[in-house]
Amino acid sequence: MTNLADRITAESRPTAAPAAPKGAIDTAWLGEYLLGTWAAARRESRELMKDSAFHRDDSLALDAQRTRVLGQLKLLVDSGSVLKAFPSGLGGNDDHGGNIASFEELVTADPSLQIKSGVQWGLFGAAVLHLGTQRHHEKFLPGIMSLEVPGAFAMTETGHGSDVAAIGTTATYDEATREFVLDTPFRAAWKDYLGNAALHGIAAVVFAQLVTKGVNHGVHAFYVPIRDENGFLDGIGGEDDGLKGGLNGIDNGRLHFHGVRVPRENLLNRYGDVAADGTYSSDIQSPGRRFFTMIGTLVQGRVSLDGASVVASKLALFIAITYGSQRRQFTAADPTKEEVILDYQRHQRRLLPKLATTYAMSFAHEKLLTAFDGVFSGARASDADREDLETLAAALKPLSTWSALEILQEARETCGGAGFLAENRLTQLRADLDIYVTFEGDNNVLLQLVAKRLLTDYSRKFKNADAGAMAGYVAGQVGAVAVNRSGLRKLAQNVADFGSTARSVGFVRDAASQRQLLTDRVETMVAALAGRLRAAQKASPVEATALFNANQNELIEAAAAHAELLQWEAFTEALDGITDGKTAEVLTWLRDLFGFSLIEKNLAWYLINGRLSAQRAAAITDYIDDRLLPRLRPHALDLVNAFGFEPEHVRSAIASGAERDRQDEAAEYFRARRDAGLEPIAEKSLKNKR
Amino acid sequence: MTNLADRITAESRPTAAPAAPKGAIDTAWLGEYLLGTWAAARRESRELMKDSAFHRDDSLALDAQRTRVLGQLKLLVDSGSVLKAFPSGLGGNDDHGGNIASFEELVTADPSLQIKSGVQWGLFGAAVLHLGTQRHHEKFLPGIMSLEVPGAFAMTETGHGSDVAAIGTTATYDEATREFVLDTPFRAAWKDYLGNAALHGIAAVVFAQLVTKGVNHGVHAFYVPIRDENGFLDGIGGEDDGLKGGLNGIDNGRLHFHGVRVPRENLLNRYGDVAADGTYSSDIQSPGRRFFTMIGTLVQGRVSLDGASVVASKLALFIAITYGSQRRQFTAADPTKEEVILDYQRHQRRLLPKLATTYAMSFAHEKLLTAFDGVFSGARASDADREDLETLAAALKPLSTWSALEILQEARETCGGAGFLAENRLTQLRADLDIYVTFEGDNNVLLQLVAKRLLTDYSRKFKNADAGAMAGYVAGQVGAVAVNRSGLRKLAQNVADFGSTARSVGFVRDAASQRQLLTDRVETMVAALAGRLRAAQKASPVEATALFNANQNELIEAAAAHAELLQWEAFTEALDGITDGKTAEVLTWLRDLFGFSLIEKNLAWYLINGRLSAQRAAAITDYIDDRLLPRLRPHALDLVNAFGFEPEHVRSAIASGAERDRQDEAAEYFRARRDAGLEPIAEKSLKNKR
Repeated sequence: MTNLADRITAESRPTAAPAAPKGAIDTAWLGEYLLGTWAAARRESRELMKDSAFHRDDSLALDAQRTRVLGQLKLLVDSGSVLKAFPSGLGGNDDHGGNIASFEELVTADPSLQIKSGVQWGLFGAAVLHLGTQRHHEKFLPGIMSLEVPGAFAMTETGHGSDVAAIGTTATYDEATREFVLDTPFRAAWKDYLGNAALHGIAAVVFAQLVTKGVNHGVHAFYVPIRDENGFLDGIGGEDDGLKGGLNGIDNGRLHFHGVRVPRENLLNRYGDVAADGTYSSDIQSPGRRFFTMIGTLVQGRVSLDGASVVASKLALFIAITYGSQRRQFTAADPTKEEVILDYQRHQRRLLPKLATTYAMSFAHEKLLTAFDGVFSGARASDADREDLETLAAALKPLSTWSALEILQEARETCGGAGFLAENRLTQLRADLDIYVTFEGDNNVLLQLVAKRLLTDYSRKFKNADAGAMAGYVAGQVGAVAVNRSGLRKLAQNVADFGSTARSVGFVRDAASQRQLLTDRVETMVAALAGRLRAAQKASPVEATALFNANQNELIEAAAAHAELLQWEAFTEALDGITDGKTAEVLTWLRDLFGFSLIEKNLAWYLINGRLSAQRAAAITDYIDDRLLPRLRPHALDLVNAFGFEPEHVRSAIASGAERDRQDEAAEYFRARRDAGLEPIAEKSLKNKR
Repeated sequence: MTNLADRITAESRPTAAPAAPKGAIDTAWLGEYLLGTWAAARRESRELMKDSAFHRDDSLALDAQRTRVLGQLKLLVDSGSVLKAFPSGLGGNDDHGGNIASFEELVTADPSLQIKSGVQWGLFGAAVLHLGTQRHHEKFLPGIMSLEVPGAFAMTETGHGSDVAAIGTTATYDEATREFVLDTPFRAAWKDYLGNAALHGIAAVVFAQLVTKGVNHGVHAFYVPIRDENGFLDGIGGEDDGLKGGLNGIDNGRLHFHGVRVPRENLLNRYGDVAADGTYSSDIQSPGRRFFTMIGTLVQGRVSLDGASVVASKLALFIAITYGSQRRQFTAADPTKEEVILDYQRHQRRLLPKLATTYAMSFAHEKLLTAFDGVFSGARASDADREDLETLAAALKPLSTWSALEILQEARETCGGAGFLAENRLTQLRADLDIYVTFEGDNNVLLQLVAKRLLTDYSRKFKNADAGAMAGYVAGQVGAVAVNRSGLRKLAQNVADFGSTARSVGFVRDAASQRQLLTDRVETMVAALAGRLRAAQKASPVEATALFNANQNELIEAAAAHAELLQWEAFTEALDGITDGKTAEVLTWLRDLFGFSLIEKNLAWYLINGRLSAQRAAAITDYIDDRLLPRLRPHALDLVNAFGFEPEHVRSAIASGAERDRQDEAAEYFRARRDAGLEPIAEKSLKNKR
């Protein structure tokens, strides 16, 4: 046994290099397929981003970074690529999907460029477009589109991020002068973290509590000039947020207002207006629904962060898998040849499930973008469509932004010390994307929005169903939980499982079974939560609060499970569109790896709730390790090449082929030395000979 | 049901603020306890680090950061604090534990300061101290200690990080001139990522294959001058690694050598020497053991990264929990008062288990540092002690460095946008600590070292045991796996579990049960691996390689499980030293949270292997959510205050009380407005009245 242990050196040994795949995937076709409906917009944007003028320059200090990115925005204007989302009447294209697709691809150049563009056109401009009316469009949009008027989107305050409805800034209507008067009543109500606020913004869309005739009508948006050539206008002040963890090409800052007057017409009045005499009116009677409708028009931020996370994840995996396919470390069977690190099981375990997740994210994003375009083009824009879009964005954005950070980090770690150098981009991208998980809706808050929707759907389903159906459902779902905890249901499944391991594995290899497991988990969790929360209806506010809080963590987990199911469904649906046999086979393995990884992550839930026997549960992990990883390994490089990045997008020294060249040079050196008899004898082999 | 869903807004509602704890922990005493054996050294170092001259300055560009940190090292020399580890004969203290403890605390000022100090005194200096002999100590150490000679530790090459034994640099002995000739044969053999190499180093300890009389005796270390006032010496060249993901106060770079000659005496010859005539000699016959002995003397890098990760984790949680205790967001039962965010279950779920992990890491590190001091002081320095120290360091460093990144990230996310600002330090600390997971031994490689030791111990155990004991062990362990998969063992446990939920929970509440579960998992995994790997003894190299690789992931997981058990044991042992009743009670809850979290993380394993019934498994999560988090919540602030940081160590705007002041100001504003009847009526309440 000691021999055995000694033969595992500090580093386990890999299998021999995998045999060349029998057939390869159609990388070119797959690349097109991944680009999706808005392939043309993506390609155009990628082509533009090959210009080094758009690339992040790590050598610049804070001020210079900010100046550079402002200049890049001007170059974007010159290219005409920022007009897509704006009305054709103003020179735009009314192309909402194409606009977001194009915008997401900016990430390959510099996430600061993406987000500063997002501030200018996706938030500041979009607020004027979606919350304003014709007069605002005509008056304000041309300057916004041309960047003549850089602006801030002044919603968040130091004291209120997630709870926008509770912001402290007020806009009080003065009937005498027909103006709104903006005020920041205390320090916590300073606007904060606003791009363009520290330096470049000369106007802002300011969100404030609209007060007229002694009544607070809730949060509305106002167009407010903030700076001229002499700096802040009267009554306005601010601070620079300074250096951040990333995105330092953007001048985030704070703003405050004291008695700042704007004309009545500067209220962006699409969803609520104030007449000259101070009378408030709105087509939406419920203040709550009015607020959520206004906020809902700004969903594109979440949509584009989801897509940008997909692009960054693809880039990270392209770098790590390219390097992992060239880098060699430690010898195994052949002492003269070191092993390629992607041939190590652990290396595959670290990267290939993340590759599967990235494909799932990519296909899911395509569906989100389609829903977004449907709503904003008006093609599919019913209330239900809008609600679905908002829920889908709230579900996918948390998963993809968190995944992007995990993927960038794992890519960094699998590239070792080289991964830490700025020249290889992974640390810089991760630093920039860090904030994606908490801005445009904190991920934990967004998942609670999704949970709310799931509970609503659950209750609706039974309001319209007859009592028998509901009883059956409850017995099948909520009832099952109680039964499972006593172990009865599992016992039954153990009997059904009595068979070979192959049969256990077979159970989850087909899509229908994966779907059943993933769907069942969501439905069971939601049903259980609904059951537990039912008591809140008759409870005191304090008790109801305590009850909800005691279930908060599980609410969020149920929402995440739902979002993962959506990703899995999107991946599975995408398989239908693949015609090439080998490509379909490999992508099906990759989808299986995604599905199996989700099930493996929540394996305890499936066991506790009697959905999987111990035998089947163990088979999940074995199948990943013994089948899926070895099958996918030979295709890993093709699967990242399908992302279609060109060297100008990658710009990572270790993914350039330099590592392969170094390996080849070293191997050739030793070969030549051995051939010439110049290589010294190793002391160890000398001793062995004695 | 719709009402129910509506009452969960986007954000679940918290419980009312927890009642004041019945009694509080003894924070001052606990603080002392946490400082441990080398409390005096830690306090002295912390006192020194209050000086702003040592603090990271985020405003500096790359060159200025490097210059500043070099200056800080000179200040450290002036303070006398760098001498602890060096021989008393040369003005040092021979205080190995105190030296590391003191060094770890530098992290509060700037991780670059910690790591640049580590390069100079912990690697470059320590290599001369531990690999050199009296002549080297007298000649080289004074200049190293005084920083007159800044130096690089030139081990890693671009082509070889983890596999140091395979580096390409050669040092060939020239009998004619009695010199070693250093050569870099190809690009992959350039030394890389070396602190002090880009700018400040004027000497280096260079690791190279020692060749004499046509025999390669493996990797040895040489003292090599590299620069004078005119730059690189003849035959030496290099490159700057440039900007990195963090630690930019350090000038990492590359070095290469072409025909560089150093006197024979510059071989650091403690473990291997070359006589004037070129004859090689060593007290250690096995080249493999010799190599690992040399490398083993450098274990202090791993020890100190473990400790530095503890310090950074404490700082992160101090910031996040202080902020979480002051920040309010969303109203629940009382519409005029927003809830403290740490009262939300999810917020507790995100932070409190990480607080438990940090305490476990802290107590485990104390044991590691004690083992380190025992070996290096000579007090407990047998071969077995050294081996244990190296295994312990290889086990704990991966867990603590990974945990530190997770803790810093969760702290950053729980502080939202504020957490992203450099002024609040979390992103900057995370960026700096990122590399800790792959340098001084890549975490995945270190855990394989631990796995090797576990397998060796396993095999030793049975070599000395009688056949009956082994058979029993195998039947009880490996055998159990086979049995469990068929479900028989679990069936038996289900019967034993037949009882109340309370009894299920009680099962894991006592330390003995937690220990049994954690230990059993390690032993069972190791036994199963040993069983599966047994076939490798009779296999061909190619087959054996494939077999090991097919088990690599599980080997690493077994090692991690072992390391977690060590942390848990250290925490449990530390409880014995607590005399105050309330402090002991709260720390026991915290230890339980740590233990339960480990079990929850691996719940599927316990279920599959029949160690926990479904009922007991479900009780684990319920007990965390329903008992431990609510019990610990009122003590969270005390538990981070016990870390003993002063404002000069924290330097985070959001952990300064500023948030509380803002909240108070806002609340007072609204209270006064309501009292004066100035607050406008909300449209919603107006409608309700009609």
